[in-house]
Amino acid sequence: MRLSEQFAKTTKNVPADEVSRNAQLLIQAGFIYRGMAGVYAYLPLGLRVLENIKNIVRTEMNGLGAEELIMTSLQRQELWQETDRWDDEKVDVWFKSQLKNGTPVGFGWSHEEPIMAMLKSYIASYRDLPVAVYQFQTKLRNELRAKSGIMRGREFIMKDLYALSKDEKELQAFYDQVSDAYIRIFEKVGLGDATFLTYASGGAFTQFSHEFQVITDAGEDIIYVDRSKKIAVNKEVYNDEVLKQLDLSTDQLEEVKSAEVGNIFNFGSSKSKQLGVYYADHNGVEQPVYLSSYGLGVTRLMGVIAEFFADDKGLVWPENVAPALVYIARLGNQPEVVKQADELYIRLTDAAIQVLYDDRDIRPGEKFADADLLGIPHRIVISEKTVQRGTFEWKKRDTTEAQQVNAEQLAKSLGIDTQALL
Amino acid sequence: MRLSEQFAKTTKNVPADEVSRNAQLLIQAGFIYRGMAGVYAYLPLGLRVLENIKNIVRTEMNGLGAEELIMTSLQRQELWQETDRWDDEKVDVWFKSQLKNGTPVGFGWSHEEPIMAMLKSYIASYRDLPVAVYQFQTKLRNELRAKSGIMRGREFIMKDLYALSKDEKELQAFYDQVSDAYIRIFEKVGLGDATFLTYASGGAFTQFSHEFQVITDAGEDIIYVDRSKKIAVNKEVYNDEVLKQLDLSTDQLEEVKSAEVGNIFNFGSSKSKQLGVYYADHNGVEQPVYLSSYGLGVTRLMGVIAEFFADDKGLVWPENVAPALVYIARLGNQPEVVKQADELYIRLTDAAIQVLYDDRDIRPGEKFADADLLGIPHRIVISEKTVQRGTFEWKKRDTTEAQQVNAEQLAKSLGIDTQALL
Repeated sequence: MRLSEQFAKTTKNVPADEVSRNAQLLIQAGFIYRGMAGVYAYLPLGLRVLENIKNIVRTEMNGLGAEELIMTSLQRQELWQETDRWDDEKVDVWFKSQLKNGTPVGFGWSHEEPIMAMLKSYIASYRDLPVAVYQFQTKLRNELRAKSGIMRGREFIMKDLYALSKDEKELQAFYDQVSDAYIRIFEKVGLGDATFLTYASGGAFTQFSHEFQVITDAGEDIIYVDRSKKIAVNKEVYNDEVLKQLDLSTDQLEEVKSAEVGNIFNFGSSKSKQLGVYYADHNGVEQPVYLSSYGLGVTRLMGVIAEFFADDKGLVWPENVAPALVYIARLGNQPEVVKQADELYIRLTDAAIQVLYDDRDIRPGEKFADADLLGIPHRIVISEKTVQRGTFEWKKRDTTEAQQVNAEQLAKSLGIDTQALL
Repeated sequence: MRLSEQFAKTTKNVPADEVSRNAQLLIQAGFIYRGMAGVYAYLPLGLRVLENIKNIVRTEMNGLGAEELIMTSLQRQELWQETDRWDDEKVDVWFKSQLKNGTPVGFGWSHEEPIMAMLKSYIASYRDLPVAVYQFQTKLRNELRAKSGIMRGREFIMKDLYALSKDEKELQAFYDQVSDAYIRIFEKVGLGDATFLTYASGGAFTQFSHEFQVITDAGEDIIYVDRSKKIAVNKEVYNDEVLKQLDLSTDQLEEVKSAEVGNIFNFGSSKSKQLGVYYADHNGVEQPVYLSSYGLGVTRLMGVIAEFFADDKGLVWPENVAPALVYIARLGNQPEVVKQADELYIRLTDAAIQVLYDDRDIRPGEKFADADLLGIPHRIVISEKTVQRGTFEWKKRDTTEAQQVNAEQLAKSLGIDTQALL
């Protein structure tokens, strides 16, 4: 992508009341646009990051044998009344409206109920189980405060996975598989070391739920981490009894701020009993289906990654989620410089590498500042100097020293064949 | 995909009040699920069709140089008041709600206003124009009646493209390019011959808007078609004066029912003047930006395709949008049959062909009925008979006669190399 052709430019104009670091940086870099507090549009580069994260998550969900679908935002009152989750006293994040005939409707903030209502029509016998389905859904939640940028929006994308199992044992086996898949996802986006499986408050059915928490000062949670055991306890359930139960000791625990990027709920058979989702077992006896749900905040994860890696010059994207792998900064308009930069852009693109090509007529300092602010992993400078030397000036975003390298070295650092550059 | 592992099955249970043929068929085939009137979830096979259509549209949009982004559903009252489109008297399809502090919010039914507000911060001079951006957005519209299945939903996916131009001439040039891109899209999905560029009522700025209308009895519009000139006139502007203006004659025109699958609006400089979107021209003089918007109903198009091609046995998908190219019906459980069917499934999948593999233990008649209902373009039967003969039984969905073919003939009909099947 040529930056001269891209509408979204870096900017210093950030809404004065935008207090979160992730939103400030992402707005400055032209990745997102704030429509109102907690409501953000994703501009082309931001959308690319989102899609990269979604594809990492999608690969892991498909690997679990889960089937992708997409439920609706509009929700029926009657359905949610069956599980007592319609009333604003019970669920305080509903946005609600009404049809022309006065029928109340809600906007989906979670999807257990419609998923169960839908799957009910497809499940009759044990042969129809287990089932796992997932979606990337735009959730709407009427949050009282929305001050954490894209880490807690009123409109955000969540991957939610729902598993229907025949019994607690089958549920638990899948639960463990998803837990492993989540760990791989956080490793792939570069947060493996900072992410902890965390015990948090459960529901009516289980003592605990499980969260995946990333240690970051930008987070809204407090957790107690045992780094050697790689687990943590959310402050909300932190007490002597729980520590004993989990075989944790206070002197091994560290209090840190963290952001919840994933959670797992075990609903047991409670929702099935409320909604009448039963199956006939091997003996033809009706049994309730066991439900577990697995959330992963896609836009929140993008916000956490932004905050976690950012430095004083701007964003620093891990290669797996970066909107482009390479930033080509062309310095000057000399025909030989333009020719070489154009060629490099075309060759990298042909080698299936995503490139941001800074072909704009602006000062070198502005190009370097933008390359840093946008956080593209590799920066390559093409200038009169490099043309004379017959080298590329190459720098990684997370190092300070640029190096003069030849085609072979550059290809190696980008993980492509040298032939692609010649 | 093995049908034995897929949760969504074909069904005869269609909601009694579901009167539209497209929704009836898509529910029966397990492609969609109705949450409420006019509100449909897309199950795995339905989602595949949607993604195929989106990718066809995306390729054409990118070819125009348009940049993909995603705006928000939640909308600010103040913004839409600036263009007088907030009031329910002016726009009767708003869903509205409010934040916890009482601030009214709307849910996006179109996105000209937020697109303009966003782009305003990036446009200063003629160098920043033209700009074209598009999105695949879930629109919410509070339709009084929703009786046309996914052809007119209360929640639906639209591709909307917005172009900002320096003047009317630049706008018109892009308008023509988009018109050509739309024609290619409708050709690619198999509706080329049935789709007509149609003159419809304009707005404050122009006499006409342009629609793309598909001739189908399922449509809600009436148009007058001149087949030789390949254009049509919407009934809403059909009068002697207009016909004269367009050089059309009543004896060449045919009255037909049709469904609008795309539309083009020329807003001129009206929205820019209302919202204050100006640029400095070559002489430094402030000029209003010219806006055109280009809708294409993605879910509606899927509904039109479903209705248009369906026969008395079910859906008939064109290859470009089909959720799979091949349906393998394995008849029986004999080891040699299972082995050959499994191998064919793996080989086609390895050749990047999407396959639905009917490996279920059900009667042949049910498999044939499902293959027809699902509308998969190619059906291949593997049975004791074909194993003995050393052939494949191959039938296209839109023909009645099955043929015994060898690997070479089968490969040819699927557009792959014979080696892939051996």
